[in-house]
Amino acid sequence: MAEHNVTVETTLATLLAAKKYSTIKDILVTMNPADIAALFEEMEQDRIPLLFRLLPKELAAETFVEMDPDLQELLIKGFSDSELREVIEELYIDDAADLVEEMPANVVKRILTQADPEMRKQINEILRYPENSAGSIMTTEYVSLRPAMTVSEAITRIRRTGVDKETIYTCYVTENRKLLGFITVKDLLLCQDDDTVVTEIMVENVISVTTRTDQEEVAQMLSRYHFLALPVLDDDERMVGIVTFDDAMDIIEEETTEDIEKMAGMLPSEKTYLRSSPFETFKQRIPWLMLLMVSATFTGMIITSFEDALAVQVALTAFIPMLMDTGGNSGSQASVTIIRALSLDELEFSDLPRVIWKEIRTAVLCGIALGAVCFLKIILIDRLLLGNESITVLIALAVCITLAATILVAKLVGCSLPMVASKLGFDPAVMASPFITTIVDALSLLVYFGIANAILL
Amino acid sequence: MAEHNVTVETTLATLLAAKKYSTIKDILVTMNPADIAALFEEMEQDRIPLLFRLLPKELAAETFVEMDPDLQELLIKGFSDSELREVIEELYIDDAADLVEEMPANVVKRILTQADPEMRKQINEILRYPENSAGSIMTTEYVSLRPAMTVSEAITRIRRTGVDKETIYTCYVTENRKLLGFITVKDLLLCQDDDTVVTEIMVENVISVTTRTDQEEVAQMLSRYHFLALPVLDDDERMVGIVTFDDAMDIIEEETTEDIEKMAGMLPSEKTYLRSSPFETFKQRIPWLMLLMVSATFTGMIITSFEDALAVQVALTAFIPMLMDTGGNSGSQASVTIIRALSLDELEFSDLPRVIWKEIRTAVLCGIALGAVCFLKIILIDRLLLGNESITVLIALAVCITLAATILVAKLVGCSLPMVASKLGFDPAVMASPFITTIVDALSLLVYFGIANAILL
Repeated sequence: MAEHNVTVETTLATLLAAKKYSTIKDILVTMNPADIAALFEEMEQDRIPLLFRLLPKELAAETFVEMDPDLQELLIKGFSDSELREVIEELYIDDAADLVEEMPANVVKRILTQADPEMRKQINEILRYPENSAGSIMTTEYVSLRPAMTVSEAITRIRRTGVDKETIYTCYVTENRKLLGFITVKDLLLCQDDDTVVTEIMVENVISVTTRTDQEEVAQMLSRYHFLALPVLDDDERMVGIVTFDDAMDIIEEETTEDIEKMAGMLPSEKTYLRSSPFETFKQRIPWLMLLMVSATFTGMIITSFEDALAVQVALTAFIPMLMDTGGNSGSQASVTIIRALSLDELEFSDLPRVIWKEIRTAVLCGIALGAVCFLKIILIDRLLLGNESITVLIALAVCITLAATILVAKLVGCSLPMVASKLGFDPAVMASPFITTIVDALSLLVYFGIANAILL
Repeated sequence: MAEHNVTVETTLATLLAAKKYSTIKDILVTMNPADIAALFEEMEQDRIPLLFRLLPKELAAETFVEMDPDLQELLIKGFSDSELREVIEELYIDDAADLVEEMPANVVKRILTQADPEMRKQINEILRYPENSAGSIMTTEYVSLRPAMTVSEAITRIRRTGVDKETIYTCYVTENRKLLGFITVKDLLLCQDDDTVVTEIMVENVISVTTRTDQEEVAQMLSRYHFLALPVLDDDERMVGIVTFDDAMDIIEEETTEDIEKMAGMLPSEKTYLRSSPFETFKQRIPWLMLLMVSATFTGMIITSFEDALAVQVALTAFIPMLMDTGGNSGSQASVTIIRALSLDELEFSDLPRVIWKEIRTAVLCGIALGAVCFLKIILIDRLLLGNESITVLIALAVCITLAATILVAKLVGCSLPMVASKLGFDPAVMASPFITTIVDALSLLVYFGIANAILL
C-alpha cells in the first residue's frame, strides 16, 4: 500500500509542478478516499489544500473523514466559510461529531456555525454522551420503518429516505421510538410477496446496547454476531441511533493497539508512531520506566543483604540474569495470554481456580524440563567445557531448584494479577510483563538466596 | 455475555432434566447462533446432540458454524447421514470448506459424500488454494450482474438468486468472468430511474485481491476501506469469489492474538486458553523459554569473566537486576511499537533511518531523565537512607552512565531488529521482548563492567 503511494506521490508532485490540474484530478477520482488521505499525509503540507480543492464534493468529504486531526485542522483553517459548509454538509453525523471532539475551540465554533440547525442539534446530542460510550460513537441517521408497512412500502421508504443514511441494509421497526424489531434489506428483497407486513418477517429478539455501553463492548458484539449495525437505546428504551461495523473495526484496531502498548509498559498514544515527536514518545514511555527503575531498589536491597554469601560464592552471581530473565519470560507468557483472553471475553473472574490449576500443571512441566536441561547445561558446559571449577554440583542444584520455583511463582503471579485487576475494575493490560517482571525478580532472588543459604552454607 | 450464559445454562439443565423440550426450543430460538454455540461449549457433552436436534434447520446450521471443531466433530459423529446432509445443505461454501479443513479424514469423507455434487466441486476448488490465502477463505457464492442489465433487471436478478448468497449488498458486474465493476444494492435502490443500465452507475476502479493474497492483507484492506466484501481474482484475472467483512473481523482477531503470543515468546495456539490442555500450553511455551535460558549462558560468561572485579566491588552486583530490567523494558517498548506499526502497515523498511533517528532522540531524553533520577536515588536512598557505605559516588556514576547507554542500545536494537526481520521476510513479531531482552542483557553487562573497570579500578 505505502509503496504504491510513494510512486503516485512522485507522479503527482511532477504534475503539480507542471500545473496539470485536470490530469491530477483524473488520477485522484480513481482512488479510494483512504488511499487519498494516506497520500496527502505523506506530502508537503502547503500542497494539500490545492490538491484537496480538486476533489469532487462527495469524494472530498469522504477523504476528509479519513485524515488525521492535524491535517483536518490545517485544511479547515484554509477553508472559506462556504467551502467549510460544503464539506460539513456531506459528513455523516457521527463523523461530524468526531470532528467536533478533536478540533480546538475556535475551529469548533466555525464548524457549528456552518452546520445547518438540524445537524447542529444532532451533533450536540451525540456530544452529550461520555467519551468512549456507544452514545458518543453512534450515528443518528438510520432507516426506521413503521410496523404497519408492507414490504413494498418499506422498499419505497428506503428508496426515498436512504440517501443520507450511513447504512440502509438493516432497517429498524419502531413505534413511538420504541424498537419492535429489525429487518434486513436482504429479507425485504427476497420476500416474494410484496404485501407482507414487515412485522411478520422482522426479527423480534433484537440485540441492542444502551448509550452508556462501552465502545469496546459494542465493537466486540458487532464482531461476535457479525452484524452490520447494532441499535442504541436510551435509558427510557427509546431508539436513538446505530453503531455500524466499520466503526467497530476501527475501535477494535485502536483498542488492541492500546492494550499492546500498555502490556509493553507504555501509556497509550493517540497518534501513529511516525507522527508523534520524540518528546511525545518520551512522555509515553518514561512513567513506567521510571517506576520500574525505582522499584528495582528492592532487588538491589535483597542482593545487598546477601552480600556476604555472594562474596563467598561469587559463582552464584553468574546465574542471576538467567534466573531473572526466565522468570520474567514465564510470567509474561502467562499474563499476556490471560490479558488477551479477558479482552476477547473468553475468561471471567469465576474461572480463576481453573486458571490457577492449569498454570500450576503447566509450570510443573516447564519447571521439570527447564530445570533438567539447565542442570545438564551447567555441569557439561559451564563446569566441564568452560572449565569453571567454582561451579559445583551443589550450586547447579541450587540454581535448578530456584529455576523451577521461579517459574511456578512467575506463572501464578502472571495469571492471577490480571484477573484480580479486572475484577477490581482496573485495566488488566497494565498488569503485564514489566510490572510482573519486577515482582518476580524480587521473589526469585529471595528463593535463590534462601536455597543457596540452605544448601551451600 | 458469559455470565448471562451461566444463568441460561442452569435453566436449560433444569428443563432438560424435566424433559420440557418444547420450552427449551422456545428459549433457544430467541437466541443468537453465536450465543447458542457458546452455551453448548460450556455444557456436558452428552447433552449437546439432544439440544442441537431441537434447533430449526437454519438456526442449527448457523449455530454449527460458530462451534469449536471438537464439538463439530462430536456432533457429526452422532449424526445420521440425512441429518448431516441437512446441516451441510444450509452451510455457505466457505464455511463448508473450513469444516472440511478442520475435520479428520474419515469425517471429511462422510461430509463430501453427503454434499451435493455442485457443492463438492466448489469445496474442492477452495481447498486447492494454500492455507491462509484469499483463495482458501473466499466464498464462491456472490451476486454477478451482466453489463447490459438495467437497474430493475438487476434488482429482479438479486431477488431471484440472492437466497444462497453470503452477501447480496455488493454485486459484481462481469463479462466472461472478467470483472468490469461493482455496484451496491444501496446504489441500485437509490437510483431513481429503473431503466438506467448498471454499467452507467457501477464503480469501475475495483479494488481486488488475487487468490494468492495473504488473508491478513485481505482483512487489513477490508478494514481500511470499510468494504462489505472484496472480489478475488485468479491468475487469469477472472473473478472466482469474494471475501466478506465478517471473515475479515475473525481473521484480524486471530492474527492479532497470534502476534501478541509471539511477542510474549510463545508459539501461536489454535485453541482458546481454557480449551487447551496444560501439556498443549507447555508445548506452546517451552521452546522460547528453553532457547532463552540456554542463550543466557552468555550473560553468565560475561559475569564470570568479571568475577575478580565483582569480588572487589560486591556493591556492583546489586545494580545488575535494575540495569537489565530497565534495558529489557526500554527495548520492548521500542520493539512492540514498531511491530504493531508494521502490522498495521504504517511503516515500511525505507522508514528505517527516520525510525532510528527518532529512537535516538527518545533514548537520549529517557537516558537523561532516568540517569539523573537514578543517581539521586542511589545517593539519597541506597547510600544515605539505607546507610550502605560501600556505594560510592563513583559507583553511582558508573551505574548511571551504564543505564543511559543501555537505554540507547536497547531502543536501537528494539526498533531495528523487527524492521530488518520484516524486510528479510521473517515475522517481526518474533523479534519482540524476550529475544531483545537477551541481546540487551549481554550488551548492557559488557558496558557496565567496561565502565566500572575504567572508573573504579
